[in-house]
Amino acid sequence: MAGDFRDALFAKHRATLEQAMQAARSRAYFSAYPEAPSGRIYGETAKADADAGFAALLAKPFAPGARQVGAEVSPWGPALRITYPSEDVATLVARAEEAAPAWAEASPEHRAGVCLEILHRLNRDSFLMAQAVMHTTGQGWAMAFQAGGPHAQDRGLEAVAYAMEELGKIPGAVRWSKPAGKETLNLDKTFRVIPRGIGLVIGCATFPTWNGYPGLFADLATGNAVIVKPHPAAILPLALTVRTARAVLAEAGFPEDVVQLAPDTADAPLAAELARHPAIGIVDFTGGPAFGGWLRTHVAGAKPLHTEEAGINPVVLHSTADFAGLCRNLAFSLSLYSGQMCTAPQNLFVPSGGIMTESGPKAFDEVAQALAAAVDALLADPARAAGVLGTVQNPATLDRIAAARGLGRVVRDSGTVEMPGFAQARSATPLIVAVEAADRAAWGEERFGPIAFLIRCKDADEALALAAASVREKGAITALVHSTDEAFLQRAETAFARAGVALSENLCGGLFVNQSAAFSDYHVSGANPAGTSCLTDAAFVANRFHIAMARRPAAA
Amino acid sequence: MAGDFRDALFAKHRATLEQAMQAARSRAYFSAYPEAPSGRIYGETAKADADAGFAALLAKPFAPGARQVGAEVSPWGPALRITYPSEDVATLVARAEEAAPAWAEASPEHRAGVCLEILHRLNRDSFLMAQAVMHTTGQGWAMAFQAGGPHAQDRGLEAVAYAMEELGKIPGAVRWSKPAGKETLNLDKTFRVIPRGIGLVIGCATFPTWNGYPGLFADLATGNAVIVKPHPAAILPLALTVRTARAVLAEAGFPEDVVQLAPDTADAPLAAELARHPAIGIVDFTGGPAFGGWLRTHVAGAKPLHTEEAGINPVVLHSTADFAGLCRNLAFSLSLYSGQMCTAPQNLFVPSGGIMTESGPKAFDEVAQALAAAVDALLADPARAAGVLGTVQNPATLDRIAAARGLGRVVRDSGTVEMPGFAQARSATPLIVAVEAADRAAWGEERFGPIAFLIRCKDADEALALAAASVREKGAITALVHSTDEAFLQRAETAFARAGVALSENLCGGLFVNQSAAFSDYHVSGANPAGTSCLTDAAFVANRFHIAMARRPAAA
Repeated sequence: MAGDFRDALFAKHRATLEQAMQAARSRAYFSAYPEAPSGRIYGETAKADADAGFAALLAKPFAPGARQVGAEVSPWGPALRITYPSEDVATLVARAEEAAPAWAEASPEHRAGVCLEILHRLNRDSFLMAQAVMHTTGQGWAMAFQAGGPHAQDRGLEAVAYAMEELGKIPGAVRWSKPAGKETLNLDKTFRVIPRGIGLVIGCATFPTWNGYPGLFADLATGNAVIVKPHPAAILPLALTVRTARAVLAEAGFPEDVVQLAPDTADAPLAAELARHPAIGIVDFTGGPAFGGWLRTHVAGAKPLHTEEAGINPVVLHSTADFAGLCRNLAFSLSLYSGQMCTAPQNLFVPSGGIMTESGPKAFDEVAQALAAAVDALLADPARAAGVLGTVQNPATLDRIAAARGLGRVVRDSGTVEMPGFAQARSATPLIVAVEAADRAAWGEERFGPIAFLIRCKDADEALALAAASVREKGAITALVHSTDEAFLQRAETAFARAGVALSENLCGGLFVNQSAAFSDYHVSGANPAGTSCLTDAAFVANRFHIAMARRPAAA
Repeated sequence: MAGDFRDALFAKHRATLEQAMQAARSRAYFSAYPEAPSGRIYGETAKADADAGFAALLAKPFAPGARQVGAEVSPWGPALRITYPSEDVATLVARAEEAAPAWAEASPEHRAGVCLEILHRLNRDSFLMAQAVMHTTGQGWAMAFQAGGPHAQDRGLEAVAYAMEELGKIPGAVRWSKPAGKETLNLDKTFRVIPRGIGLVIGCATFPTWNGYPGLFADLATGNAVIVKPHPAAILPLALTVRTARAVLAEAGFPEDVVQLAPDTADAPLAAELARHPAIGIVDFTGGPAFGGWLRTHVAGAKPLHTEEAGINPVVLHSTADFAGLCRNLAFSLSLYSGQMCTAPQNLFVPSGGIMTESGPKAFDEVAQALAAAVDALLADPARAAGVLGTVQNPATLDRIAAARGLGRVVRDSGTVEMPGFAQARSATPLIVAVEAADRAAWGEERFGPIAFLIRCKDADEALALAAASVREKGAITALVHSTDEAFLQRAETAFARAGVALSENLCGGLFVNQSAAFSDYHVSGANPAGTSCLTDAAFVANRFHIAMARRPAAA
C-alpha cells in the first residue's frame, strides 16, 4: 500500500524533477513554482483563504504540547501570540533516531517523491506562507510571497535535484573481476548510500524558508531525518513547513518524526546543544558570524557544516551608459527590504574624480546626490515605499542606523515612512553616508540594515582593489560593477571571481544585484567569509551521505 | 608552443582518463598501471637501473639549497643520509602564490594532461619508487613496488577522474531568459571554476604515495597549486614525486612551483604553521589522531580538511565453510607489513562457544591455536616472512608490542625473524592476545602494529554488536565477517554500513581485507572517526574549487 503510494508520488513529480536536474546542469532559466501571486494560478480565493487561515492561527497554540514557547511579534505591529510545543534535545534526538531508519531505507526515488509532494503542497499554500513570512521577517507582502514561497520552493527543489544527481552515480552492485595470472579473482560488491545522521537546520529571522529549504531538502533527499530549529523571531514559516512535511510523510507511510520542529527561546537556546550532539550528523546554519564562528570552531571538525553568515557586498562605479538607470536600479537594491537581504549592497566605491556617463562626467558629489534623489523618488509614495521597504525585522537595526550617521557625511538620512494600514510598523529608509577610502573603520565591517557607504577612492582601479580585498577579508555574497569599458569589466570579473563573490554588471533595468535565481545563480561561494557553502553545488549535497560497501567472493 | 604541447599531453592520455572516469562510475575492475614488477612491462633493466639510481641518491643532497634537512633511516638498516632543501613557510607560500595563477587559468583538459603525464612518468619509474618506499616505510619490496607505485598511481588517477567529472558539469556560459509579463529579461551569465587556494598535502610514514596522491592530484586537477609536506621519516618517495611533477610542469610551460616539497624535521615541524596559513585553502592529512584532532579543531572551520587518521578494524567470526582458508587468509592479513596497514585487522571477535566450521564446531581456544599456527606456517620461511612482514617503520611500535603482552593471555607471541641480507632490519611478527569482551581497556583503542586481540564474546550477535559499536566510537576503515548464514551476513552488512566501514565477507583465498582497489573500493567513509573523507567520492573533490559567476544584461 505505502509502496504504491510512494511510487505514485514519484511518478507524479518525475517530470518536474527531471526538468530541475536538467536546469541545474544548463543553468538556464527554470522555475517550477509560479512567482506571480495570481488568483488564476493559485485559486481566486487563495488570498482570502490565506488571510482567514492566518487569522485563525493567531493567539493560540500552533499544536498541543505540555511546554509551549513562542513570542513572535510582527515588525508590522501586532504580537502573533502563537505558541509552539517545545521538547528538550534528548527527546528530539530520540524521536529522530526512532524515525530515521525507515527513511534511510527508502529508495532515493521514493524520498524524492515525498520531497516534491511537500514542495507541491507548500507551493499550493504560498499565500498563507506569505502572511507568515511577512509577519515574522517584516518583509513586504510581495517579497514575502515570492521569496518566502515559490523562490524558496525552487531552492528546495534544486537541492533535491542535486542530491538525485549524486545518488544516481552510485551503482547498486558490481561483479569485480581482476585478472591474476591464469586465474581471475572475482568479488561481488554492493554499494549502499547511508545518510550521515540527523540533519540540523538552524533557521534565520529574515529568510527562514529561502535559506532553510536547501539544507532541509538536501538532508531529506539524501536520507537523513531532520530537526528544524527556527529563529525565535521567525518560527511560524518553518512550523508551517514542518507541518506540511509531516503530513506528507505520514500519508506515505513514513514516521512523521523524520522532520521535527525544535522551537526555542532567546533565553534557553537549543542550537548549540543540538549541533554538538553526537547523533547530529550535519549542520546547516544561516545567521550571524558570532554563532557561525562558534559552529566553525566546535562543530566543523566533527561533522559537515554548511553556513551562510554575513558579508559586506560591494559596488564599484567606473562608468555607465545609463546614469539615470544606474541610480534607479541601485536605489531599489538599497531600499528593497530595507537593506536586510544578504545580497544587498553596502559599500559603493566611487572614484574621487567621479564617473563618466552618457551625458558627460559626473563628479563624486553629483553621483551622491543623484543616488539620494533616486531613493527619494522611489520611496515618495507611501504605499509603494511600504511594499519595497517592508519593515525592519530587529529593533537593534535602528540603533545601528543611528550610530552609522556619525561615521561620515550623511548624503541621505534614514527616516521613517508611513505604512498604510500598519500604524505601528517599524520602518527605516536607506541611510547613505559618504566616507573616505581610508575610513575603513566605518565601511570595513558589516552594518546590517539600510546603511550604505559612498566610499571616495583615488580612482576606479583603487575602487576595484579595495572592493575585492574587502570581500576576501570580510566576505560578500554579491558584487556589482558599472563600466562601459570591457577591459575594466574583465578585470572586475577576475578580481571578484578570485574573491569568491557573484558579480553583476551594468544593471540598469528590472534586474537587481539582490536577486539570486535557483538553478542558475550560485548563491554564496564558500570561498570567502560570507559562508562555507554554496546554494547549490555538488559540494553542498555530496557530504550528506556516505557510501557503504560490502564485498564477498563471487559464487563460482 | 606550450599550448600545442599541452594539447598533445591531453590527447596522449585522453583514453586512459575516459576509461578511469567510466570505471569510477561502474566500480568494476580497472587499473591503468600494471602491478606486476615485470621486466617485460617495465623494461628488462628497470630493476637494475633502479637499484643503481637509488644507490646514487644516497648520502648526498637530493637537490641544492642553503638549508638542508633529512635524517631518514631505513627500517631495513642503513641511514639514507639524503638531505633535502628546506624553506620557511613564507617562502613556500610566496612561491606557490606566484605560480598559482598560471595553473588556475589553464583549462581542465590541459591540467588533466599534465597530471596524467606525471602519473605516467611515476609509473615508468616504479622500480625506483619501490626502493624509496621500501627504505623509508620499511615495507617489503613487493608491497613497496605495488602499493608505492602502480596502486598509488591508480589512486592518483582516480582523483583526476573524479575532478574531471565534477568540472565537466559546470557550463561555461548561458543565456538566461526569464519571462516577465510581455517582456523577457535576458542575462548573459558566465561561470568559471576557481581553485580554493593552495593545497597542503601532509604525508605519512607508512604509505606516503598511496595516501598522498589522492589529495595531490585532486588539488592539481581542480587548479590548485600544492605544497607537499612529507613525514620526516619518509621524504624520499614524495621528493621523487615532486621532482617528476615539476619536470612535467616545466616542460608544459607552467611554473615548477605549482608543486613544491616542504620537508621538515620532528624538532621544527612545518605542518601546523602551513595548515593555518590563510593562503592555504585545502588541507589533506594522513596520520595519527593527535594531529588530526588538532587540524579538526583549528583548521576545519576555515577551509576544507580531508583526513585519514586511525581506527580499530574488526573481524567477526560466526561460522565458515573453509576453516583452514579462513585461518590462512587472516594470518596473512595480520602479518602483511607487520600490521602497519590502516586496513589491517586488530580486533577478532569470537563467540565464547567457538564457531561452526565445515568439519564441525571449533572451540574458542581451537580457533586461537589454529590462527596462531597459520601465522607460524606463513612465516616459517625467512625469505617469505621478510617479504610478507617487511619491517617495523617506527621503533615505538616495538614498545607497544611489549606493553600489549600484558593485556591478556598471549596466544601467539611476537618475535623477530631473520631478514636475509638485512642484518639490522627491525622485525616483529604478529602478537595475538586473548581477552574478554569486557576488557575494553585492552582492545578498545588502536594499538598500531602487529598486535591483534582475540576477544571472547558471549555469542556471534554480541560479537557483531561490539564490533559495530567500536567502529562508531573509535573508527575503522575495514571490517571482515565470516559466516555461512546469509541472515547473519545481512545483519553484518547493515550494522557495518551504518558504522561507515567497508565490509569484506568470507575471504578464504587470495583476496584480503587489507586490500583496497582504486576505482572500485571506497577507502574510508568519512562517517566514523577513522577519517573525514573517502578516497574517492564526489565529496573528496567537490569542495576543492568554487564556481565564480558573472552576469550582465544581454545585448539586444
